[in-house]
Amino acid sequence: MGPKISIIGAGSLFWSSNLVHDLCLTPDLEGSAVSLMDINEERLRTIVNFARRYSSERKFNIKFEATTDRKESIKDADLVINVAMAGGHDYYERMRKISEFHGYYRGINSVEWNMVSDYHTIWGYYQFKLALEIARDVESLSPDSWFLQLSNPVFELVTLLGRETRLKIIGICHGHRDSREVANAMGFDEREMETESIGLNHTIWLTEFKRNGEDKYPELREWIDSKYERFYKDWSVLASTIPFLSQMSPVMVDMYNKFGLVPIGDTVRSGMWKNHRNIQTKKKWYGGMGGFDSRLGWNYYLKKEKSILEDVRNSLRDTITPLSNSFSSEISDEPVVPIMDSLLNNKRIVHQVNVINSGFLGHLPRNVAVETPAYVDGKGVHQITEKNLPARIVNFSLLPRILRMEWAIEAFLEDGRQVLEMWLNADPRTRNSKQVENVIDALLGLPENEEMARHFR
Amino acid sequence: MGPKISIIGAGSLFWSSNLVHDLCLTPDLEGSAVSLMDINEERLRTIVNFARRYSSERKFNIKFEATTDRKESIKDADLVINVAMAGGHDYYERMRKISEFHGYYRGINSVEWNMVSDYHTIWGYYQFKLALEIARDVESLSPDSWFLQLSNPVFELVTLLGRETRLKIIGICHGHRDSREVANAMGFDEREMETESIGLNHTIWLTEFKRNGEDKYPELREWIDSKYERFYKDWSVLASTIPFLSQMSPVMVDMYNKFGLVPIGDTVRSGMWKNHRNIQTKKKWYGGMGGFDSRLGWNYYLKKEKSILEDVRNSLRDTITPLSNSFSSEISDEPVVPIMDSLLNNKRIVHQVNVINSGFLGHLPRNVAVETPAYVDGKGVHQITEKNLPARIVNFSLLPRILRMEWAIEAFLEDGRQVLEMWLNADPRTRNSKQVENVIDALLGLPENEEMARHFR
Repeated sequence: MGPKISIIGAGSLFWSSNLVHDLCLTPDLEGSAVSLMDINEERLRTIVNFARRYSSERKFNIKFEATTDRKESIKDADLVINVAMAGGHDYYERMRKISEFHGYYRGINSVEWNMVSDYHTIWGYYQFKLALEIARDVESLSPDSWFLQLSNPVFELVTLLGRETRLKIIGICHGHRDSREVANAMGFDEREMETESIGLNHTIWLTEFKRNGEDKYPELREWIDSKYERFYKDWSVLASTIPFLSQMSPVMVDMYNKFGLVPIGDTVRSGMWKNHRNIQTKKKWYGGMGGFDSRLGWNYYLKKEKSILEDVRNSLRDTITPLSNSFSSEISDEPVVPIMDSLLNNKRIVHQVNVINSGFLGHLPRNVAVETPAYVDGKGVHQITEKNLPARIVNFSLLPRILRMEWAIEAFLEDGRQVLEMWLNADPRTRNSKQVENVIDALLGLPENEEMARHFR
Repeated sequence: MGPKISIIGAGSLFWSSNLVHDLCLTPDLEGSAVSLMDINEERLRTIVNFARRYSSERKFNIKFEATTDRKESIKDADLVINVAMAGGHDYYERMRKISEFHGYYRGINSVEWNMVSDYHTIWGYYQFKLALEIARDVESLSPDSWFLQLSNPVFELVTLLGRETRLKIIGICHGHRDSREVANAMGFDEREMETESIGLNHTIWLTEFKRNGEDKYPELREWIDSKYERFYKDWSVLASTIPFLSQMSPVMVDMYNKFGLVPIGDTVRSGMWKNHRNIQTKKKWYGGMGGFDSRLGWNYYLKKEKSILEDVRNSLRDTITPLSNSFSSEISDEPVVPIMDSLLNNKRIVHQVNVINSGFLGHLPRNVAVETPAYVDGKGVHQITEKNLPARIVNFSLLPRILRMEWAIEAFLEDGRQVLEMWLNADPRTRNSKQVENVIDALLGLPENEEMARHFR
C-alpha cells in the first residue's frame, strides 16, 4: 500500500487537474491513495471524476477518493496539502470594492511589497483561521505527516503555522521559475542555466545566474544597458493585451538598478508604492493593462481561471475524446509533485521551499519563513549553505515585508480593532483618522464578516 | 591626578553650564581635568570662563581647559562625551522649510516614531559623519576611554558606532525621567516610585510602575478612566501656552490604550502619523500649541534655548553677583554626571543607558542599541535581567523604528540617491515620484549640502 495524500481545498480545478496530471506522470507515486477534500460538493465531484478518468486513461495505478469531511481526509495521511482559500475570490473582490470607495486603491490589503491581488494578509482573518484549523486537525490526526502549504499568503501562513504548531511545514510557490524569462530574453536556453533566488516568499532576489558554471550577471547588466530598450518595444506591445508579463517589465529593471540584484517572479508584481500609486503609475511600469494587479489585469486573470474550469467540465462531458489530449505528455513545471516525490520516496533533490529560518538566511530573524533552494528528501528539508543577501535588500525589501507579516499575524492572533487602525495609519493612502474609522466599519459591516467583526471589536 | 574628561561640542552653553554645575557637586570627581572642545571659539571662551569662575566659587578642585583642536582634547582622555551637533539648528530649519515647500510637513526627516524636531536621521549626513570621525579619533588617541554619546540621534549613532568601532559606547538620554509626571499627576510622590522604562531611545515604555513594592498600574488604569478627563481640563489650559507637556497629553492615553503600556518621554512626542498629519491633528492631540514639535512649539523651544544662552552671558558680564545664585545648590537630575561618577569611580548604580543589545531585550535583534536600566560601574554596563516587551509594542513601535534606523544608517554608509528615494517612497506624504525627485534636488541643492550631494549622487 502506497502513501495516503490528503488535498484540502481540492475544488480548485485549474490547480487540481494539473496536480492529477503530474501525479500520473510520477511512477514512484503509483499505488498512492489520494483523498480530495473540499466543501464545494459540485466541484469535488468534477475533480474526482476527472482524476479517476485521467488516471485510468494513463493506466496509472492510483486511488482517488472525494470527501467533504476534512478530518476523514486528513486522518492517517502521510502528506497533507493545504490549497484551500477561505471565502473565495468574490468575497475578497467585495472587500476591495469597499476599500476603494474609501480611498484605498486595490484594497487595504495591498501595500508595499504586497500588491499581489489574491495574497490576502491583514484582511485574511478567515484564511488564517482556516489554515490553523486544518493544521490543528493534522496535529491530532496525522501528526507525523508532511504539511505542504500552497495557498497564499505562503509567507504569513508558513510563519504562523511554524510558530503555532509542531508540524513539518513546507510552503511552496512557483514564482522562482520566472528567472528563466530573464534567461530567455537574453537568448539563453533556460535549461542550461543554474539560477538561485532567495529571500521571502514573493520577495526573492536572483543571487545566482550562471551558465556552464560561468557567472552571467555581467552579461545581464550589459544586456539591460544596451538591449533592454529594444526588447521593451516588443514587450510593451504584448503587455498591452497580456497582463502577466511583469518579470521583464521596467519594474524589474528599476529594482535591479536600485537593489543590485534582479527581483524574481511575484517580487516584480509587488514592489513599492512608486509602481502602484494609481492606474497611471501601474500602466507606466507594467504596460498598457497596468499589469497583473490592476483592475483590468486582475479581471483578465479571474476570467481566465473561470474559462479553464469550463474547459475541464467540457472535457468531462465529452466522453469520447481522451482527457489526456488536452494535456502535455510531460510532467508540468509546477514544483509540488516533484517535492512530494522527494519527501515520500526519499529522493534527495534540490527544490525551492519556504521554511522557518533555522539559519538558511543568516541575516534574517530565525522565526520567520524564508524562501530558498534546499535539499529535500525523506527526512525533510536540508540547508545547502548559509546565504546572505545585501544590506540594501534586507533593509528596504525584506524587513518591510517582515514587518507587515508580523502585523498581519498579530491581527489574527490578537483580538481588537487597534491593529487594523495601526495598519491603516501607516498607509500612504490614509488622509485622516476618520477615513480609517470609516473603512474599518464598512469592511466589518459586510454580512459575511460578522465573525471577523467580533474578532476585531 | 584625576581623570581626563573630553567634551566634544561643549559650546552648547545651556547643556554645558549644567554639566559644570553637576560636576562641581560631585565630590569624587574633584581633581578631574576637563577639556572643553568646540569649533566655535566665542562660545568656547564663554563656557570655559563660566566653568572656571563657577568651580572657583564652589571651591571645587577641577581644571577646565578649552581647545578648538579635537585631537588634543581627546588625546589620553579617560572619558569622552560627544554632544556635538553638526550644522546647528539653522541648517536643519532650512532643510525643514524646503521639505515643507515640497509637501513634507515638518521635514522629510519627521516620520512615524520620529517626530522630534532635532532628532536628525535620514538627512543627518553631516551629523553621522561627525560622530564617526570623533569616534575614529577616540579609537586612535584614547582607545580605552568611555565614549558617551549624548547628541541625537542617540539610537542611530549608538548603533552605528557600536557596529563600526571597537569603542565602549553608552548613549544617554533623559526622557525616561518623565515617568515621574505620570506619578505626580496621580498624586504620588515621585521619589517613592520604582519605575522602569525600556525599549529603544525615544521609544520606551513603562514596564514597571511601583510604590513600596506594590504595582500601581491598576491604579493608573483607573485614574485614566475616571480622573484623566478632569486632569485634561487643567492640562489643556497649560498646554495652550507651554508646548512641552506631551507626557500627559491625550497621545499618552491613546497609546496606552492601544499598546497596553504607558509611553514615556519623547516616545509620546514621536508616535504615529495619526497624531502628526498636520497642525490640526497636532493641536487636537498635543494641545493648543500643537506640542513640542509643531512650528509654534519648536520655535518656542529654540527661543528659550537662546534666552538661556543670553542669561549665561549676562551672568558672566556681572562680575559681582555669584554665578551660583542662578543655580540650585543641589545636583540636577540630568543623568550624565552620575553615570560618569559610576564609570570613573567604580560606583555600581542603576542608570538608564543606551547600549548595543547583547541580550538586554530578548525579543529584539542583537546588533541594535536598546535603552534600558542597567548596573553601571568601573567595568561598564551590566545587564540586570533579560526583559521582553509585548508583541504589540515590538511589532508596531520598535520594529518600525528599527527599520527607519537601518535606512538612515545605510543612507550614511552607502553612496547613492536610491536610499533617499526609497525612504520617500515609503512616506505617506508622497503623492508621486516627481515630488520625490524635486524635494531631493532642492535639499541637495543647498550650498551647505555640496558634500552631502556628492555622497547621494
